[in-house]
Amino acid sequence: MGHYPVCLDDIRQAADALTGTVIRTPLLENADVNALLGGRLLLKAENMQRTGAFKIRGAYNRMLGLSKAERARGAVTYSSGNHALGLARAAAILGSSAVIVMPSDVPEAKRTAVWEMGAEIVTYDRDTQDSADIVAEIIQETGRIEVPPSAHPQVLAGAGTAALELLEDAGCALDAVLIPCGGGGLTAATAVVMHEASPATQVFAAEPELFDDTRRSLEIGHRVGNPRGRRTICDAIMTPIPNALTFSINSELLAGGVTATDDEVRDAMRFAFSHFKLVTEPGAVVGLAAILSGRVPIAGRTVATVITGGNIDAQGFARLLNQTP
Amino acid sequence: MGHYPVCLDDIRQAADALTGTVIRTPLLENADVNALLGGRLLLKAENMQRTGAFKIRGAYNRMLGLSKAERARGAVTYSSGNHALGLARAAAILGSSAVIVMPSDVPEAKRTAVWEMGAEIVTYDRDTQDSADIVAEIIQETGRIEVPPSAHPQVLAGAGTAALELLEDAGCALDAVLIPCGGGGLTAATAVVMHEASPATQVFAAEPELFDDTRRSLEIGHRVGNPRGRRTICDAIMTPIPNALTFSINSELLAGGVTATDDEVRDAMRFAFSHFKLVTEPGAVVGLAAILSGRVPIAGRTVATVITGGNIDAQGFARLLNQTP
Repeated sequence: MGHYPVCLDDIRQAADALTGTVIRTPLLENADVNALLGGRLLLKAENMQRTGAFKIRGAYNRMLGLSKAERARGAVTYSSGNHALGLARAAAILGSSAVIVMPSDVPEAKRTAVWEMGAEIVTYDRDTQDSADIVAEIIQETGRIEVPPSAHPQVLAGAGTAALELLEDAGCALDAVLIPCGGGGLTAATAVVMHEASPATQVFAAEPELFDDTRRSLEIGHRVGNPRGRRTICDAIMTPIPNALTFSINSELLAGGVTATDDEVRDAMRFAFSHFKLVTEPGAVVGLAAILSGRVPIAGRTVATVITGGNIDAQGFARLLNQTP
Repeated sequence: MGHYPVCLDDIRQAADALTGTVIRTPLLENADVNALLGGRLLLKAENMQRTGAFKIRGAYNRMLGLSKAERARGAVTYSSGNHALGLARAAAILGSSAVIVMPSDVPEAKRTAVWEMGAEIVTYDRDTQDSADIVAEIIQETGRIEVPPSAHPQVLAGAGTAALELLEDAGCALDAVLIPCGGGGLTAATAVVMHEASPATQVFAAEPELFDDTRRSLEIGHRVGNPRGRRTICDAIMTPIPNALTFSINSELLAGGVTATDDEVRDAMRFAFSHFKLVTEPGAVVGLAAILSGRVPIAGRTVATVITGGNIDAQGFARLLNQTP
């Protein structure tokens, strides 16, 4: 079991370290929904996590792993989404600091949210500059530590605590778990948890139909990217290509990749709204959308998914809910 | 302790009887929200209950109390809201049946929802007929049992199970609990739970500013109604006057009544949306609105409220969230 970048023991240690700081989010189930689907559906509501997404788990665990001197220098990352919020808050909780690199044209609401979580924001011009260069410059000048959204073993260990809670709270055998997959960190960490603690459970990466880089990479056996210029409403998981670290796990442990169209994602948001009274962001319900669309059978089985986040403003939420194909 | 229509033992028995049928809904807390408020805020998310509101607890417990012959005859009630949904489902689960009396001009969506939960619907003309007469006729003709939304000890015992779970899951002393108050059933049942199991906890009825019949009745010492012709967005708790059964409890055990304006209720819905990712209906967050408006102090204290329901359609939800004063 020791040859993956993260193992169940690391995740258990992270779970201990995170207790009292992250929320043990509820695992939701509704008998009327189960009757409708003919099987048991379990939703791990990480949209209810601090900062509105599971990302704080990995960011906080990575920050805990820094030395005192490193924490004093602080963290830096490139993100305009849930990872930015999670890292900002994690750094603030630990009395450290975070710099978040964002394109200058990011919506004001996102900048405000990150700023409110306690981070410093550095903007760059999307047309003439590269985010990686800006991060590298900041590291060079300040000695800050880069905390990536998934490609670090301690970030993976933190993310895995969500899967560990899911398994513990399920209290029954899980036939399949679907994880919304962008960089693949939560997917990989979940795969490790199930591999070691519940080997009969199939773990699937769930992706937007037009951003199915992990699904195709799994089929081909090596990492392939998505064509440029595509769009999806699932902004949180619009990644160009699987990262090497998470793919080293996912390529060995996943049962496969499944996809959902944007219309199916909107339907899943409406389903979560009506039946579970949840506010979700589109990228967070790709797993649910794949289940509801029958990509992974649920009849007579127990199938779980993580609702990864709920950071969406009221107008955007209303627009998506009321949009018809 | 024996002189109220319901006591803690009844509620504990109901809790046992309801286990496995109703959802033990999560008690939500968020450290960042607590930091914002300077105290601990606990939300019992009964919007996540089966049928989207706490009402099924009372309806199901009352149905359990019927004899086999009574169950065969079935239940009847007047309601176009959450009690209708809860009773419809409770009857269906037990292999009984329910007739729901509704005005003929009720929105199609509400009729459909009740019908989908398995009930038969009888409509009447609001202008020329009285709902109580229709219910009485149905009882006369069919022998059905009336299951009221709050005015029955077994309905109260069922409702009280939500308060019992709240107290158990809090795992700490509660300084105050605010309950959205329409007929006053959940309020009364919560008051009984706290009176017997946590006597230092203050219980408040929370009402819309213009439907504060319980608050005024508590002040005056006897039941007084609301003037006719008033409106509020809190449709679930637009009651004309406290009912005698619940007021017999509330008048002795409550710490008082607090109110919130419709604007404050909309703000509370937005707060639940942003910080807890919850879909709520307006009447369900009157307690939260009163807390956020400072009607009951939270600084340095632990204050809880029940989010009583989340039955609202996407368009109505969007309209309320995006509405400004």
